[in-house]
Amino acid sequence: MNETLSVLMNHRSIRKFKQEEVSQEQLASIVAAGQMASTSSNVQAYSVIAVTEPGLKKQLAALAGGQAYVEQCPVFLVWCADLYRLKRVTEEHRPDQTSYEDSTENFIIATIDAALAAQNAAIAAESMGLGIVYIGGIRNHIAEVAELLGLPELVYPVFGMCVGVPDQEPGLRPRLPQAAVLHMNGYDANQTMEQVKLYDETMGHYLSERTSGERTTPWSEIMAVRLTEPVRLHMKSFLEQKGFLKQ
Amino acid sequence: MNETLSVLMNHRSIRKFKQEEVSQEQLASIVAAGQMASTSSNVQAYSVIAVTEPGLKKQLAALAGGQAYVEQCPVFLVWCADLYRLKRVTEEHRPDQTSYEDSTENFIIATIDAALAAQNAAIAAESMGLGIVYIGGIRNHIAEVAELLGLPELVYPVFGMCVGVPDQEPGLRPRLPQAAVLHMNGYDANQTMEQVKLYDETMGHYLSERTSGERTTPWSEIMAVRLTEPVRLHMKSFLEQKGFLKQ
Repeated sequence: MNETLSVLMNHRSIRKFKQEEVSQEQLASIVAAGQMASTSSNVQAYSVIAVTEPGLKKQLAALAGGQAYVEQCPVFLVWCADLYRLKRVTEEHRPDQTSYEDSTENFIIATIDAALAAQNAAIAAESMGLGIVYIGGIRNHIAEVAELLGLPELVYPVFGMCVGVPDQEPGLRPRLPQAAVLHMNGYDANQTMEQVKLYDETMGHYLSERTSGERTTPWSEIMAVRLTEPVRLHMKSFLEQKGFLKQ
Repeated sequence: MNETLSVLMNHRSIRKFKQEEVSQEQLASIVAAGQMASTSSNVQAYSVIAVTEPGLKKQLAALAGGQAYVEQCPVFLVWCADLYRLKRVTEEHRPDQTSYEDSTENFIIATIDAALAAQNAAIAAESMGLGIVYIGGIRNHIAEVAELLGLPELVYPVFGMCVGVPDQEPGLRPRLPQAAVLHMNGYDANQTMEQVKLYDETMGHYLSERTSGERTTPWSEIMAVRLTEPVRLHMKSFLEQKGFLKQ
């Protein structure tokens, strides 16, 4: 296994950080790696806000559901899908033409661009001995987060990412068996559902070991609970209000 | 620079592949690396279809706008956002409860999960000396692609990815200056637009050099053309028909 595969295969989310800085040089390398990710037709439709100011991190931690590590990490990155730049240059070069920044297609492009850049940045950080955790919780109060960070129209915070020196070494969490997610030449619904049963056992043992037998809920049941929770139902109206997803 | 950073910083999209196979072991490693990417609350809401069957690749190449490398690459991966598994286990464990697979939030989660896994897979492939290119063109005729691959409700093809042994060595394409995408503690609209001006010059020179002076269009103008093109306006109705994005 080469060094890069080893970094990729040893990912675990880090939720406890040492009181050590991430240097400007490290941050620049992390974001530079993010920038080298693929981008649809070179649109580069994302931005990243690096939050280092303690008061701001504290507010974001509260808005994200009181996740202490958002406050404690030295750098909190907020990855944003960003069609604002494109809209501005379109107003400049083609002021009288209809533009499609509000299409579902362009929303998807910008969201993917942000995600690919973020994942490259995550791998870069981990290769340098830093740890990261993605924070979807910033979408809990997304309008407040957007206001706090001064995001203009056509920019939305996709997720946050804590970055810092790890102060814990969690175990690797087992993933679905490969045959559940990898299909050859066509989708195999029976196969994926059979593999879920195997994963239920795997995750039952894993949870049981980590909680001294207290929790043994199968993955599929945890997922059923999750999908029946009305989580962040404000997203559609927030995004429309920001100029996205109108057609 | 460590080995992993070097892989990340040397990404270029590969559109010409040697007539060499990608082995089953390589494919397994690539997908395993994808699976180790972060996933929102462990939902793992994605699938990947590995297309190796020549007839199927040929059809996909045509549907993607006649991109020959889709047919020529030994493995064409179709990365899908997948809430089908979650819906099925919810029907099993909570048959009488309302579920939210059609929320914009869950659409975003599944799309991001697919993108993070795909980017890990891309890095894994590149670290093994293989080359990749993302293919957004599979969204040109997305309904036909979904049907060809037998995708059930709540699964949509986000993008394709050619994987193979590179038979070309393109130059690195310059990205936006870092100050255009990286903001400290808040979005800086003036800064990002100033940096776009610098990038216009950079890309003008880059294009000019690659086309012996024939093309010098600034990036911002190319983007303005792009944003005024009515591209893939079928996405919203397709996704709704697949069960996504209804609320």
